[in-house]
Amino acid sequence: MKNIYKLDRPVYIISDASVVGQSEAEGPMGELFDFAIRGDDTFGCDTWEKAESELQRLALSEALAKGLLCDGEIDMILSGDLLNQCIGSAFGLSDFETPFIGLYGACSTAAEGLMLGSLISSAYSARVAAVTSSHNASAERQFRSPLEYGGQRPPTAQWTVTGSGSFILSANIADAQRCAKGDDICIAEILEVCPGRIVDAGINDANNMGAAMAPAAADTIERYFQDGGKMPSLILTGDLGYEGSEILKDILKNRNTDISDVHMDCGLMIYDRKKQDKHSGASGCGCSATVLSAGILKDIRSAQLEDVVFVGTGALMNTMSVQQGMTIPAIAHLVHIKGRAFPGEEKK
Amino acid sequence: MKNIYKLDRPVYIISDASVVGQSEAEGPMGELFDFAIRGDDTFGCDTWEKAESELQRLALSEALAKGLLCDGEIDMILSGDLLNQCIGSAFGLSDFETPFIGLYGACSTAAEGLMLGSLISSAYSARVAAVTSSHNASAERQFRSPLEYGGQRPPTAQWTVTGSGSFILSANIADAQRCAKGDDICIAEILEVCPGRIVDAGINDANNMGAAMAPAAADTIERYFQDGGKMPSLILTGDLGYEGSEILKDILKNRNTDISDVHMDCGLMIYDRKKQDKHSGASGCGCSATVLSAGILKDIRSAQLEDVVFVGTGALMNTMSVQQGMTIPAIAHLVHIKGRAFPGEEKK
Repeated sequence: MKNIYKLDRPVYIISDASVVGQSEAEGPMGELFDFAIRGDDTFGCDTWEKAESELQRLALSEALAKGLLCDGEIDMILSGDLLNQCIGSAFGLSDFETPFIGLYGACSTAAEGLMLGSLISSAYSARVAAVTSSHNASAERQFRSPLEYGGQRPPTAQWTVTGSGSFILSANIADAQRCAKGDDICIAEILEVCPGRIVDAGINDANNMGAAMAPAAADTIERYFQDGGKMPSLILTGDLGYEGSEILKDILKNRNTDISDVHMDCGLMIYDRKKQDKHSGASGCGCSATVLSAGILKDIRSAQLEDVVFVGTGALMNTMSVQQGMTIPAIAHLVHIKGRAFPGEEKK
Repeated sequence: MKNIYKLDRPVYIISDASVVGQSEAEGPMGELFDFAIRGDDTFGCDTWEKAESELQRLALSEALAKGLLCDGEIDMILSGDLLNQCIGSAFGLSDFETPFIGLYGACSTAAEGLMLGSLISSAYSARVAAVTSSHNASAERQFRSPLEYGGQRPPTAQWTVTGSGSFILSANIADAQRCAKGDDICIAEILEVCPGRIVDAGINDANNMGAAMAPAAADTIERYFQDGGKMPSLILTGDLGYEGSEILKDILKNRNTDISDVHMDCGLMIYDRKKQDKHSGASGCGCSATVLSAGILKDIRSAQLEDVVFVGTGALMNTMSVQQGMTIPAIAHLVHIKGRAFPGEEKK
């Protein structure tokens, strides 16, 4: 069984974009997102589901614009979301005339898209877009109760991010040079990926997803190191929240791997814990996608971060499986992203 | 924009398996499936959702057994289904310790899994399993009404198949030779794939999926021929049903492509139209997966069929999008499968 897939031709994240709602705009990363709506999170739509689709449309359009590309100049879009039958993606991206591959990886979708996209981009010289989204209100309506019910959330619950992130991948260095901004020192490149396995730790509390997902993250990180993966400058999980992050570090420590110095979780970065009470942190496909785009990739490009092991985590349940008393299987996909100094030639 | 992805190293479908419920077992293909339950469709489980998961577990276990492989000897499983958040796959495959990639392509999932699986298997020398399922009762409960309600179905409605198909892919010819059965004349190999685009023809009748999906199938088939694809011995769509199949042939005829001599639809093959009244035919992820496994691949291996363009079609809606008056976007992924005579060496 192969754990790590090394890319013979590295794949560059040539462009990316993030779109978020009001709570995210008010958080510590607020100034970094490409689009942030203030006022309400409808994005001018008459349903929350349409608003989520609009997030994806905006995020992909902006990433294409930043990459100086139009719809017909990419070869494939990989996308998924949390809504039943992934309608956020289907309706958000139906105007694009590019081949579309639907994914389902729950909150790991950003990592899943980057992983599959880089495997395909590297081997087939394709320009691939990876997109994902979540919307707090559409997720609350579907997974819990409509917001108007005002249900109480326990302390271990995470808050679904209203946001979408999109990434354009290319194995062509000229693409990366063309898209580089004036102050970029490095290009963000994907070197290797490690797909996750389904891990079911027996958790059945849908308000404690962090606990369900941490063992999956531990499994993937452990297999990565066992197969020769090196400790990076940052292990970025998304989204374990406060509870899950501690569990992950504990599990790995018990297996003689201490990641506490290099670990961060996207779920802890997007809201201010003191000013914005979101309980155990952020979650949702849009969380790790927007944090990676708005924060981490900028730090890689400005050479503040050398390399990042991005581990997207997802809980693979639905409301019915929880009602039927089933446990919550989880998964974590890993993408190793590194900053690469511009090669001999100048930026174009 | 790239339409066709040609595989430098061909990928072989070294083994596959099909599992179906009672109605499917009573149909014209009944004797061909690997497992067919008679009695009821619970597969010994206490909920329909668990029964669907059990279908996937059985189908993958049987394909591995036929391939003389155990869990650790494949590198990746690609799977998805129609249930919210694809829990059929997550719970059905959680016992396998193989990396898992979740897909969402509605009824196109068999084709989507074969397409992505062959792209990855070819480029990274990986053994990949593609799995999918549907269950009539879990689909009725989720998309329409519980069976006990006895709701009336209009003539254009299709019947969700209770079934699961799984396929093991390998780019290693020795794998294919090892798995060949005594009377096989050919190996089934995937030569090229063509991912679909989202096509929204404005249909909003959830009881007429064939009409929603036919334009997507036409788009993919047309792009395939435009990019150099040749007319095969069989264009196998899955699952347009009676209504959608006629629409597809009409659309293509109007664009000067006549496929009526070579076209078949999986939705028309699994039930007997006269004895089993299923209205416009079969549908569901399990339909094309089981027809391909139990019927078409056998015909390719026995050299009765030379080459097949398999076009999996899916409708990308959910109940809420229909309730909100949205139209039904659809997609169709294409996989070109050919029979290849055994090379110089004998079968092993």
